[in-house]
Amino acid sequence: MEGAGRPAGMWGGRFGEPPDPAIRAFTRSFPFDRRLAKHDLIGSLAHARMLLEAGILDRMSGTAILTGLGEILKDVESGALLVDGEDEDVHSWIERVLTERIGEEARRLHTARSRNDQVATALRLYLRESVEGLVGELLLLLEAWLQEAARHRTTLLPGYTHLQRAQPTTLAHHLLAHVWALLADADRLIRVHRKSGLSPLGAGALAGSPHPIRPERTAELLGFEGVVPNSMHAVADRDFVLEALFAFALLQVHLSRWAEEVILWTTSEFAFASLLDSVAGGSSLMPQKKNPEAAELIRAKAGRTIGSLAAFLTVVKGLPLTYHSDLQEDKEALFDALDTVAGSLRAALALSRGIRYDPDRMRAALSGGFLTATDLADYLVRKGVPFRTAHEQVGRAVREAEARGCELRELPLDVLRACCPEAGSEIYDVLSPEASVRSRRTFGGPSPERVEEQLRRAEEEVGEVRRWLGRCESPPIYRAYLAGRLLANEL
Amino acid sequence: MEGAGRPAGMWGGRFGEPPDPAIRAFTRSFPFDRRLAKHDLIGSLAHARMLLEAGILDRMSGTAILTGLGEILKDVESGALLVDGEDEDVHSWIERVLTERIGEEARRLHTARSRNDQVATALRLYLRESVEGLVGELLLLLEAWLQEAARHRTTLLPGYTHLQRAQPTTLAHHLLAHVWALLADADRLIRVHRKSGLSPLGAGALAGSPHPIRPERTAELLGFEGVVPNSMHAVADRDFVLEALFAFALLQVHLSRWAEEVILWTTSEFAFASLLDSVAGGSSLMPQKKNPEAAELIRAKAGRTIGSLAAFLTVVKGLPLTYHSDLQEDKEALFDALDTVAGSLRAALALSRGIRYDPDRMRAALSGGFLTATDLADYLVRKGVPFRTAHEQVGRAVREAEARGCELRELPLDVLRACCPEAGSEIYDVLSPEASVRSRRTFGGPSPERVEEQLRRAEEEVGEVRRWLGRCESPPIYRAYLAGRLLANEL
Amino acid sequence: MEGAGRPAGMWGGRFGEPPDPAIRAFTRSFPFDRRLAKHDLIGSLAHARMLLEAGILDRMSGTAILTGLGEILKDVESGALLVDGEDEDVHSWIERVLTERIGEEARRLHTARSRNDQVATALRLYLRESVEGLVGELLLLLEAWLQEAARHRTTLLPGYTHLQRAQPTTLAHHLLAHVWALLADADRLIRVHRKSGLSPLGAGALAGSPHPIRPERTAELLGFEGVVPNSMHAVADRDFVLEALFAFALLQVHLSRWAEEVILWTTSEFAFASLLDSVAGGSSLMPQKKNPEAAELIRAKAGRTIGSLAAFLTVVKGLPLTYHSDLQEDKEALFDALDTVAGSLRAALALSRGIRYDPDRMRAALSGGFLTATDLADYLVRKGVPFRTAHEQVGRAVREAEARGCELRELPLDVLRACCPEAGSEIYDVLSPEASVRSRRTFGGPSPERVEEQLRRAEEEVGEVRRWLGRCESPPIYRAYLAGRLLANEL
Amino acid sequence: MEGAGRPAGMWGGRFGEPPDPAIRAFTRSFPFDRRLAKHDLIGSLAHARMLLEAGILDRMSGTAILTGLGEILKDVESGALLVDGEDEDVHSWIERVLTERIGEEARRLHTARSRNDQVATALRLYLRESVEGLVGELLLLLEAWLQEAARHRTTLLPGYTHLQRAQPTTLAHHLLAHVWALLADADRLIRVHRKSGLSPLGAGALAGSPHPIRPERTAELLGFEGVVPNSMHAVADRDFVLEALFAFALLQVHLSRWAEEVILWTTSEFAFASLLDSVAGGSSLMPQKKNPEAAELIRAKAGRTIGSLAAFLTVVKGLPLTYHSDLQEDKEALFDALDTVAGSLRAALALSRGIRYDPDRMRAALSGGFLTATDLADYLVRKGVPFRTAHEQVGRAVREAEARGCELRELPLDVLRACCPEAGSEIYDVLSPEASVRSRRTFGGPSPERVEEQLRRAEEEVGEVRRWLGRCESPPIYRAYLAGRLLANEL
Repeated sequence: MEGAGRPAGMWGGRFGEPPDPAIRAFTRSFPFDRRLAKHDLIGSLAHARMLLEAGILDRMSGTAILTGLGEILKDVESGALLVDGEDEDVHSWIERVLTERIGEEARRLHTARSRNDQVATALRLYLRESVEGLVGELLLLLEAWLQEAARHRTTLLPGYTHLQRAQPTTLAHHLLAHVWALLADADRLIRVHRKSGLSPLGAGALAGSPHPIRPERTAELLGFEGVVPNSMHAVADRDFVLEALFAFALLQVHLSRWAEEVILWTTSEFAFASLLDSVAGGSSLMPQKKNPEAAELIRAKAGRTIGSLAAFLTVVKGLPLTYHSDLQEDKEALFDALDTVAGSLRAALALSRGIRYDPDRMRAALSGGFLTATDLADYLVRKGVPFRTAHEQVGRAVREAEARGCELRELPLDVLRACCPEAGSEIYDVLSPEASVRSRRTFGGPSPERVEEQLRRAEEEVGEVRRWLGRCESPPIYRAYLAGRLLANEL
Repeated sequence: MEGAGRPAGMWGGRFGEPPDPAIRAFTRSFPFDRRLAKHDLIGSLAHARMLLEAGILDRMSGTAILTGLGEILKDVESGALLVDGEDEDVHSWIERVLTERIGEEARRLHTARSRNDQVATALRLYLRESVEGLVGELLLLLEAWLQEAARHRTTLLPGYTHLQRAQPTTLAHHLLAHVWALLADADRLIRVHRKSGLSPLGAGALAGSPHPIRPERTAELLGFEGVVPNSMHAVADRDFVLEALFAFALLQVHLSRWAEEVILWTTSEFAFASLLDSVAGGSSLMPQKKNPEAAELIRAKAGRTIGSLAAFLTVVKGLPLTYHSDLQEDKEALFDALDTVAGSLRAALALSRGIRYDPDRMRAALSGGFLTATDLADYLVRKGVPFRTAHEQVGRAVREAEARGCELRELPLDVLRACCPEAGSEIYDVLSPEASVRSRRTFGGPSPERVEEQLRRAEEEVGEVRRWLGRCESPPIYRAYLAGRLLANEL
Repeated sequence: MEGAGRPAGMWGGRFGEPPDPAIRAFTRSFPFDRRLAKHDLIGSLAHARMLLEAGILDRMSGTAILTGLGEILKDVESGALLVDGEDEDVHSWIERVLTERIGEEARRLHTARSRNDQVATALRLYLRESVEGLVGELLLLLEAWLQEAARHRTTLLPGYTHLQRAQPTTLAHHLLAHVWALLADADRLIRVHRKSGLSPLGAGALAGSPHPIRPERTAELLGFEGVVPNSMHAVADRDFVLEALFAFALLQVHLSRWAEEVILWTTSEFAFASLLDSVAGGSSLMPQKKNPEAAELIRAKAGRTIGSLAAFLTVVKGLPLTYHSDLQEDKEALFDALDTVAGSLRAALALSRGIRYDPDRMRAALSGGFLTATDLADYLVRKGVPFRTAHEQVGRAVREAEARGCELRELPLDVLRACCPEAGSEIYDVLSPEASVRSRRTFGGPSPERVEEQLRRAEEEVGEVRRWLGRCESPPIYRAYLAGRLLANEL
Repeated sequence: MEGAGRPAGMWGGRFGEPPDPAIRAFTRSFPFDRRLAKHDLIGSLAHARMLLEAGILDRMSGTAILTGLGEILKDVESGALLVDGEDEDVHSWIERVLTERIGEEARRLHTARSRNDQVATALRLYLRESVEGLVGELLLLLEAWLQEAARHRTTLLPGYTHLQRAQPTTLAHHLLAHVWALLADADRLIRVHRKSGLSPLGAGALAGSPHPIRPERTAELLGFEGVVPNSMHAVADRDFVLEALFAFALLQVHLSRWAEEVILWTTSEFAFASLLDSVAGGSSLMPQKKNPEAAELIRAKAGRTIGSLAAFLTVVKGLPLTYHSDLQEDKEALFDALDTVAGSLRAALALSRGIRYDPDRMRAALSGGFLTATDLADYLVRKGVPFRTAHEQVGRAVREAEARGCELRELPLDVLRACCPEAGSEIYDVLSPEASVRSRRTFGGPSPERVEEQLRRAEEEVGEVRRWLGRCESPPIYRAYLAGRLLANEL
């Protein structure tokens, strides 16, 4: 073992040779799993506390270990201790540091535990905290959009299908469509949080432990809602990572749709909006350029998160039970997706604050494109014309107007009547964008009262997400650590 | 328009030329969306009934349309009417057939509706029914696995990590690990069902309607739980498809993990199981071959569903509001994934019934590989040895046994003691697989009482899913159609 | 075997039970591999001819088989024989039909062959022919674009970066950028054709054959350039499919970039182009709509081909040697991608013919957006100002012009000089788009002579691809079949 | 501009506000593009040298810039200068450092260049050098496998299909199958190298330059084979990245197939091989474990590279011309895939050296599974029995042997004859694995002379790749820099 030159590791006794450097460089995870230091320490605190409570560690060992871990955690959080070194992974690093600090007693910490259940625990804790952070960022964005929507209740603009002008609507209505998409993301994130709230600790390598451990207690100390019901599943399962990756990818896809509009709307051609200099980029060559770089990157990064999701699904495919090193790929995929989404949300917030809408350009865009043609058809329906017939008649009127290079409302009544025999002179009333929007009082539609109602509903749902976030708490063992009560009789 | 040679279509009036054949062949969706015929008819029935109730259709028109649609539905379901033709899509086909049957009144059906909200409605209805079917298939598989687990409470076999023998466990414990993975899939499917339960109908192209329609009523007639809260979102959103594709991909990944084990276990090398001839394939060249083809395909098709998910996420990325033809790609992706998962579930059930486990081979595999080395270390821990030290001592004992070509239990006590000084003669008791399994009484672990408890828990959860399925009902308007009450005052 | 009720299949002797219906429905490939009928027949013709030449089949058997296969091929090609039935796959179907037609001798065809090498052969033949078809479609598109470019040598429009107007260029220059992307696709397709030109036939299941077969001869008869150098690799390898899927995905991505521009340019906002009615779609609700549906679908289908590529890479990942049923997933992935790309190329050609560019709108777009700001900076550089300084000075001039709501060329000389002290009155000469384009004589740049040169180069390369296609020939055995010389002494 | 607080950047003049911190953090690429420092410096050296030769820079400026850049390059390569700071990207960093070192003259470097063409140039240079490195690693692995194959010309083992024992073969034959797969990868890498060998420099932002630059000369100085033929394409195109990502993904998939076999073969069940301790991993809990962790990670990382490919294809999809910030995502995708493949190749080499095959176990595996059943059928064919009939007869013999629990060769002749009436007593000769392998003399097959021939062919092809690598040279300008001849009249 170590005497033979193998670096003191976690499995010294059985191995006769030092690890090959290329293999070690390839398999060690410390360069990225160091990010789990805090949460692995929290997991270890809970584990040690449970061992102590269950009498598996005696008072002396338990005290030494809990105190030692608590101090390492303090030093990590303060930055006094760098999470760094030649260790294989963050778990070995913690055990090594603990041993340096408290000596032999540290060798009792890994009782009734394997890295298999340990790493799954740390990753779940890390994910839950990260998701809370993401929900916080998402709320800021939602709130910004809701405010913007409230400011633009009556700002008219074309609604588009196929990127062709379709029907008049309001900017509030348009922005709220994005709000609902993101509210569904918040819901998915909350679900990811909940689904990752089962504790794998106690599963050991795959078969639990012969010691009288109490996994339910560890779960409680960690703020989990329960224990994974099967110890093999506990170490083999990465659904919580996959659900997170999907939730992130879909959120990023939603952001990409909004970002695409920022890009389109700030072109010279649309010019529905402009960006403050502070949120735009320039060109090293072309002095006049102002580019929506952040919006482009938000759009692009949807591809990145889709890739991470596909990658890790592919990794898990076809793995027999239980743990395999393949699962080690969960971390970089997850960390990268988390960073991507968090950065995108922050950038989207900054962009949202740095965008200036131009209601005049939007209103002007309503004058071309025959956007109220449908209103004309609906008018004819009210006159008793079957819709399909009305649609054809208006289609002919549109061709006529197109040929004359004018708008529908600029066609003389006799010309209109030649296409649409039922049309009366009041027809011109339905051809204004304002009238069109006012008339569309369907639930979820653009009319002012409906948008008002929708705004309030959305605000309520955003409020509910905020309340959920307010209810989130750190794991009890972490709060005990903060309160200096790791060894208290009652937590 | 039509006069000019353009086939009578939905947008005749505005177009002066017939469609280019290559474009038409490329854009028409009838070859695949015909699969939605039933659900588009159901959507149309609800729409027409609502129009009638709201007075937008008069009694005569409403009666003609409802009766006509009902008869088409009957003929489609009976097979008397083939969903076939040169039409652009299933919506045009239905409108054309309706027109052929009831004449001019058919032209009133599309009032206050667009294909944008219509197709989203039909697809949601179709998805919900399909998901119910999938849950049914999934339940059969879960029940089969639970029965198998119950039969193998005491069948011992090695638990594996890294495909290396790790610790003894039972086949029941092992199968239950797969059960929990699939139970989470059932939960996801139920969520997909619920999340797709909002009605887009009434959103029109994007801006609702100026007619006094009642989308809440349409939703109710269709068995939806509510209405999409924003009409632009209603036609632009395909999250329900993406959530379904993700749920299918993850389910298929789970099946692939189980299938991989079928493949491994039926090799000559493992030989933990064999397949009945009826579920195996042969070779055209090698007369002796019996291949686990279905298991291989289940494994492979995880790749296919991952591809469909990645594909459609990629399609939606960067689309501005609202509807784009890009979204038309939702259907083939969804249909293919549905068929893939449904076929895989059915094949997995057949495989499960056609697999014969070989407890003797499993038990024999426990005799090699030092599977109770951890038990030995845990024994030493109970003697007061710090775990890390115990681990090293046992590691040395393993090397010793390996060098002698014997098992741990075959080492003489003095040799064992040379490695593990605290070992007493009772040590041999902990080295049997049976003792190991018995001792692992952790929650979720392999000990008989824990497996019993776990079995009951899993059965309860499966039962809950079955009860959920039992509560699922067809849309009220469809039940009214079946009962011949489409025109009744009360549904 | 068959007596026991198992449908007469290829592996009757060893199996005691009929296949389970769910398994059979799941594993049979005939519903999709029937598409390979022609190419599997060609492969069988070559195999039989080689067996005959090598004396493994005697004259009578060889004649019966070759004649029988030739007649089946004729009937399949004429449509007289439907490739249909309850068979497991296309190989069984052919053998069954052959047996029905020529009796017992048919049972000798499968000598020294396995479905493993047989199906890989048929798929390679099919792919090569399909790729030739694709290259043909691609050439038509390239030629159309080249003609369009030649027509628009002097049509000015803004070149864009970040979708912001950047610098003036010409439509010819712009279209040629797309031409080069597609020329690289042609090159990749030709490579796919070449790389799939090795024959697996003779590899058997994995270990070749003890009969004195001559795989080099079979390869020659099939028009392959050689034989796969390892019989295990021959049946395990699907790189030719993966390379094809990648080539298709990248081609489709290129088309999606062009399609995005069609969508943008035909908006009311850009209006650089319009679509003929014959290549646009309408709305069922909105009478005025004209939508670039085909362009949207071309864009979307890039997602689909990316998904197919990811899917099949995922399928192949981690498969040990040699053949697995997983590889059966190659066909649907490949067929779908082929159809997608072929349909997209045809639609892109129709779109290209149905697009009407609007040079006036393009020219008008050059007047806003300070597109010649870089020319101004370059002018200052020629005056000796370091570029970075010139860039800053012009940046200030742009801000000044923006504040005044005018173009750079509308700034009075004194104002310009306040920003750019080196500016002389000749500065206004460099600020016209025409001057800008003329001055950019870099290789590959937009100046007329450079575009002319580029056009010729691109035409040459397109011509070379066309010549390659002209050199492609059907497999010799197929030509022998067409010439009625299957039994001739010399082919 | 800067006065207003905006950090001195590349586009100071036009911007009135400092960048938003969240936007800046999100859009800056320096944290990852710093990796391009060397290659961006090389690109700048070539650009400056060309500007000097063309008289666009005068002697003094040119000398200052070339000298300054050369010194920065030296300091970067020696590590004396850390590529670090708050800069936006590596290009700004270089320009800033150059300005600090040589002052005002540095502001002339960016003449006739944009970051758009600059970054594409640096990335191509970087990729080419990296690919050379990868080919080097790949060669080591190929050579190791060839040596192993040469050692195991006569080591018999079962060949598998569907993971079921199929036919006898040799380890040399088996290993060579992997060799051919990797040789195709080498070919793909060489193609990636060649295809990335066109210079974008001179394209500027998209429209070339009005200065009399000579892009052909820059290309020559950089060792490129030519210039991208269209300046818009030059900055918009990322096919070279996508081709690289595909080549890497496919290579990694090939490695994953080999790694899967390492995992299978080192199980207790197969036990065809074992790993030296130095290339295996252990367990923190289970003292006996020896896990093929590196092989598992190689397998898993195929998923990662597939994800990167899908991600960046998705990023590029639908981007109109020309450059977009989306393309900035090319770098992290490429770097990660490069590192993944390089690490995997090194780990595979170490694994290959640390694997110990067990010919006895392999040979023993030939005694079960009826591996010579096909040889028996082929024997019957030689006796005149049609193959399909022979197949059935042998199938029955296999069932008989299976029922008796014996091998085919252990069946008495009368029993064999009851199944296969044509069988004579010499039949037992064909039933030995040695005879089977010897008889399979098909090109590419397992017979000793064929394997010998194949070995030589593979060695030749590997030798050709090595010669290609030997011919690769650094860019001329880099060699000039090393030789201290940046300012020499002739390079």
